[in-house]
Amino acid sequence: MTEERSKRHGLVIVNTGQGKGKTTAALGLMTRAWGRGWNMCVLQFIKASTGNYGENRAAKKMGIELTPLGDGFTWLSKDIEKDKALARECWELCKEKIASDEYDLVIMDELTYPLVYGWLPIAEVIETLKNRPAGLHVVITGRDAPQELIDFADLVTEMREIKHPFRTEGLRAQPGIEF
Amino acid sequence: MTEERSKRHGLVIVNTGQGKGKTTAALGLMTRAWGRGWNMCVLQFIKASTGNYGENRAAKKMGIELTPLGDGFTWLSKDIEKDKALARECWELCKEKIASDEYDLVIMDELTYPLVYGWLPIAEVIETLKNRPAGLHVVITGRDAPQELIDFADLVTEMREIKHPFRTEGLRAQPGIEF
Repeated sequence: MTEERSKRHGLVIVNTGQGKGKTTAALGLMTRAWGRGWNMCVLQFIKASTGNYGENRAAKKMGIELTPLGDGFTWLSKDIEKDKALARECWELCKEKIASDEYDLVIMDELTYPLVYGWLPIAEVIETLKNRPAGLHVVITGRDAPQELIDFADLVTEMREIKHPFRTEGLRAQPGIEF
Repeated sequence: MTEERSKRHGLVIVNTGQGKGKTTAALGLMTRAWGRGWNMCVLQFIKASTGNYGENRAAKKMGIELTPLGDGFTWLSKDIEKDKALARECWELCKEKIASDEYDLVIMDELTYPLVYGWLPIAEVIETLKNRPAGLHVVITGRDAPQELIDFADLVTEMREIKHPFRTEGLRAQPGIEF
């Protein structure tokens, strides 16, 4: 697997924009890669570690390492220093996973938020991506991806909301679809 | 499950646009829903029935009914009558699956193409969606979703290409990422 990996051109893929489907498409890549027997890990920056969503349940059944790193809604608490420290802690784990050379695919879900808030320096993230093991694909999701990240990435897609049932029909998020 | 289903507000979800992630996000929903133990089927209009892509392999391992209905590239053959007949055949199977009331989620991957080509009447598709069992979520993917479909759908996302490695770096599609 490592030999195959080193021959591959690893991509940095960014799913951004205000619409749905950023995390969902990352989960789709996860599924596709899992179908091919790849090693991968999914690190979720915002999702609470207590979450038991569709993706957590699926990853468990599939034997995929999916780690919710955030603290859910308290992530956006009034205690900025705590949030910053948590973001730093999460990022250190990401760096470790990326450098380990154990994975074919590393997904960092909602990484853009700590970048946008200025809690993590974008230069450090780019540097880590630049120095990643050959052949490692990385997927980053979240709104408002910084321009430096877009410039560095290989594949960037913007998910645009054309129509959303929460707005048009007042419907709430539904299990199995939204989480 | 049927009781739970009938209480739910089923959504019609459309992933369209020129960018990546339309099918991939549908596979993400599939994974999430599978995590919750839903019954689902994936009907692929364009993918060749001989395909053994990441998603085919994953669906097989997950026990998900994923049916490639198309005939691959010969789908866009010079024999329009053959293509039309194949599109009709595929659609009849979709109608059957939708009406069966056996599923929580039906994904019709790349359905927009036969619609755009005029091989299937959009009115018939809308009618089928309108009369679907209560609580059934339907996902439709493909470029150039017709306006009537967008008008009828609950959730519509446009995947926009911001940057693509085939263009910027001349890279080819890669297994595990693109298919």
